Amino acid sequence: MKNGCALTIAEIAERIGGRSVGDRGRIIRGVQGPRGIDPEKIIVCRDSKSLSKAAPGIAVVALEGLIPEGSSGVEAPDAEKAFISVLSLFAPAREATPGIHPSAVVHPCSLVSASASVGPFCVIGDGCTISDGAVLEGQIFVGAGAQIGPRTRIEPQAVIHERTIIGESCVIHSGAVIGCDGFGFIPDFEKGHAKIPQIGRVRIGDRVEVGACVTIDRATVDETVIESGTVIDDHVHIGHNAMIGEKCILVAMTGIAGSAVLEDGVIMAARSGVADHVTVGKRAQVAAYGGATRDVPPGTTVSGFPARDHREELKKQALLRRLPGLLDTVKKLCAEVDALQEKVNGKDT
Amino acid sequence: MKNGCALTIAEIAERIGGRSVGDRGRIIRGVQGPRGIDPEKIIVCRDSKSLSKAAPGIAVVALEGLIPEGSSGVEAPDAEKAFISVLSLFAPAREATPGIHPSAVVHPCSLVSASASVGPFCVIGDGCTISDGAVLEGQIFVGAGAQIGPRTRIEPQAVIHERTIIGESCVIHSGAVIGCDGFGFIPDFEKGHAKIPQIGRVRIGDRVEVGACVTIDRATVDETVIESGTVIDDHVHIGHNAMIGEKCILVAMTGIAGSAVLEDGVIMAARSGVADHVTVGKRAQVAAYGGATRDVPPGTTVSGFPARDHREELKKQALLRRLPGLLDTVKKLCAEVDALQEKVNGKDT
Amino acid sequence: MKNGCALTIAEIAERIGGRSVGDRGRIIRGVQGPRGIDPEKIIVCRDSKSLSKAAPGIAVVALEGLIPEGSSGVEAPDAEKAFISVLSLFAPAREATPGIHPSAVVHPCSLVSASASVGPFCVIGDGCTISDGAVLEGQIFVGAGAQIGPRTRIEPQAVIHERTIIGESCVIHSGAVIGCDGFGFIPDFEKGHAKIPQIGRVRIGDRVEVGACVTIDRATVDETVIESGTVIDDHVHIGHNAMIGEKCILVAMTGIAGSAVLEDGVIMAARSGVADHVTVGKRAQVAAYGGATRDVPPGTTVSGFPARDHREELKKQALLRRLPGLLDTVKKLCAEVDALQEKVNGKDT
Repeated sequence: MKNGCALTIAEIAERIGGRSVGDRGRIIRGVQGPRGIDPEKIIVCRDSKSLSKAAPGIAVVALEGLIPEGSSGVEAPDAEKAFISVLSLFAPAREATPGIHPSAVVHPCSLVSASASVGPFCVIGDGCTISDGAVLEGQIFVGAGAQIGPRTRIEPQAVIHERTIIGESCVIHSGAVIGCDGFGFIPDFEKGHAKIPQIGRVRIGDRVEVGACVTIDRATVDETVIESGTVIDDHVHIGHNAMIGEKCILVAMTGIAGSAVLEDGVIMAARSGVADHVTVGKRAQVAAYGGATRDVPPGTTVSGFPARDHREELKKQALLRRLPGLLDTVKKLCAEVDALQEKVNGKDT
Repeated sequence: MKNGCALTIAEIAERIGGRSVGDRGRIIRGVQGPRGIDPEKIIVCRDSKSLSKAAPGIAVVALEGLIPEGSSGVEAPDAEKAFISVLSLFAPAREATPGIHPSAVVHPCSLVSASASVGPFCVIGDGCTISDGAVLEGQIFVGAGAQIGPRTRIEPQAVIHERTIIGESCVIHSGAVIGCDGFGFIPDFEKGHAKIPQIGRVRIGDRVEVGACVTIDRATVDETVIESGTVIDDHVHIGHNAMIGEKCILVAMTGIAGSAVLEDGVIMAARSGVADHVTVGKRAQVAAYGGATRDVPPGTTVSGFPARDHREELKKQALLRRLPGLLDTVKKLCAEVDALQEKVNGKDT
Repeated sequence: MKNGCALTIAEIAERIGGRSVGDRGRIIRGVQGPRGIDPEKIIVCRDSKSLSKAAPGIAVVALEGLIPEGSSGVEAPDAEKAFISVLSLFAPAREATPGIHPSAVVHPCSLVSASASVGPFCVIGDGCTISDGAVLEGQIFVGAGAQIGPRTRIEPQAVIHERTIIGESCVIHSGAVIGCDGFGFIPDFEKGHAKIPQIGRVRIGDRVEVGACVTIDRATVDETVIESGTVIDDHVHIGHNAMIGEKCILVAMTGIAGSAVLEDGVIMAARSGVADHVTVGKRAQVAAYGGATRDVPPGTTVSGFPARDHREELKKQALLRRLPGLLDTVKKLCAEVDALQEKVNGKDT
């Protein structure tokens, strides 16, 4: 096993479409953070602040014109893109030999592409399709009738339940459970809660990323849907029949209740939530720790629980800070009014 | 693999104890949501609102007398029960052949019933009992001395730690970890926190549902207990020595701290919590996002953190909305009192 | 399988360095909680309150001089230490035979110590090191280049991703996912969010405990670090490039965002959080449900969201409770000022 990529500064410049500066022949073997001091690793400065932190003599990637006189590195037209490009150059290869590991248990009525890779101890049920270039790393369970799209990568110990459909070029991280029963019961505190069979499925679009220990429950009927381009962080829960639009961002520990709707481009910040049957409009945001219990208009940001317009919430926070002063003012007013009353009424008498 | 159930409307009516209406011979192959337009699928209308949404020509199940003239479907005396019955008719069969998959590793001193099903890559430790009709789907770990009751179904990649006892007809979903060490340490910030051995176990009653990625820690000594009929959604955490009563409902992302007690029929809404050693009384509720840090009286609802009586909390919310007005009023009062003082005191002078 | 430890009271006293009292020859076969009534089990009374609950005739461990006349048990100089010692005596042995289970898939270029134990269905990638006395219980995935330190125990179904380094004497619980990709994207709501390759790793020190279903993401570059002696409860999430100091305590459901820093000895209470790039100072605490969005000074306690000094937060709570009274007072003031104005201004006219 080798991470062994080695490139000169000139080669890096060429590959990322930048311009090499200084000691162009220096060998670089990896990338390091803004405070790194390893002379064989390069620092990608995404802003001028991180550039100022870089130790002298360490090679950097920075925006055009920003590399100081005497330093070595690569000038790039777009720092964000350069960051991705340089990291990609040095990303350790994840070899995935096509083929089915001899230990895997694959149902004979399933279709596994010859270019797909199925790792050790995977279980693939009846009637599944594993498409071209898909990678199932190891110890993965794929339930009957599930479909895994081309070039989708599933990391170890994910569970893809029966009938789930996953599109192309997705990444499903370890410990994710997709297509599990929704939480549906008709409550009965006498005879016991009656389970509502959950006979729907989960459908996931293309280029979706699903974090570690994420649960996406299958629909009672029809589908729980995650549209293309949406990215989901670790420990997120998505209830049955929820509809998540395209290119949404769901940060860690977010909870989406059953039948909730996120329109396209919604951002759910860390540990936020949406109640059941609530719609969050296009490009709206729920701030960290917030919980939307009513529909959120497109393009707005809400925070708090129950969530309100974020500016209102900030005002509320500010007002709360003025409470101690308010109490003092009212106390003072009471005394003044008392004095006035005595005076005025005293005169009257 | 076939989901292939096909029934006429008349057959559905007969099987769910309803009355067929309209085109009794029409073939139905599945169930769809209220807005579905597949002519081969039926809609179960749990209320009149969903009935009004149903597209014309689509077969429906509805309460007696509610199916419009000219439509086809089944009239049922109880919409909720009919929903469960119809879904059950079309629920894809989950075949579980009795027997132990040749790849499973089962300790010779464990007892596996001949009618139980142990799937691929399961590991069953020393001294376990797997009872009649129990299903271990695949890739499941059962620690030494654990007992799995009759007809209990364990989905792929659950971990049942040593000595755990699970009753009959339970469902344990994927990624659940039952009987893990409790989080017990004697804090010592100098020499290091000293781990308290966790030598108790988890005991789960009958007909309990445990969601995906749920953790139920074993007791320090004695037992962490989940009584019969309780249903637990995904991502719930239950600490060591907690006692969860019968027929409780724990919605997703709820946290129950160590030694907390939920009496029978408690509802913990989404992302709610109970602090350690706190008791939530019979049929009480903790609202979404709420955290009970003190005992909750039976039958009451609390919300907020720290949780208070829900009506008090709502009043507090309402008062907070009146804060801006209050500030204005007090400002106005100050001005008026100033004016009065000037006048009254001015006269005095 | 036997939990079969049996010791006389005198033997227990000897082993834990205490003094036996009463019926010294009585056989004890286990430990029970403060209300236990099994005559063959002993109760460890960590305080005088639990001593008073103990049923008569049941053997107890208690502080010197506290065991009542006529009772049997062991007097110990330190109740907390005695608790750990007695539990350790009766903790069921977890046998782990050295060697690699024949079903495990171990890459030939990995090094597994002869004294390590690798259980069934484990997968160990290329270039890993499994050190002396390490235990991988079963169904564990260890990615390429990972290092597992001496005597570290990994429970079933944990995932240790590529390049992760774990020190000695750690415990990693089931369902933990260590070294997964961090959640890094350059947002683009038009063309789709661009994934930032996550090429760093996770490094964990010695004697660290990682709870069930915990996710610790690997760094974008460099390392996500958990220093020695830190203990982490279930369902905790730690983002990429976070730095967790020594001997921290992270209670269940806590979330640490990317690049956050916890200095040594920090306590994160249940369901607390830290925002990205925020530092929590040495021995500081974030209270339950709190979320630190700004740096927390060493030694302080913050609560609420956004978190503030805990005493300020308590004052705020107290002020809120005075709001209803305040509203009444202001209403009364308005009436009084109205009356005064009428009187004073009336006179004027």
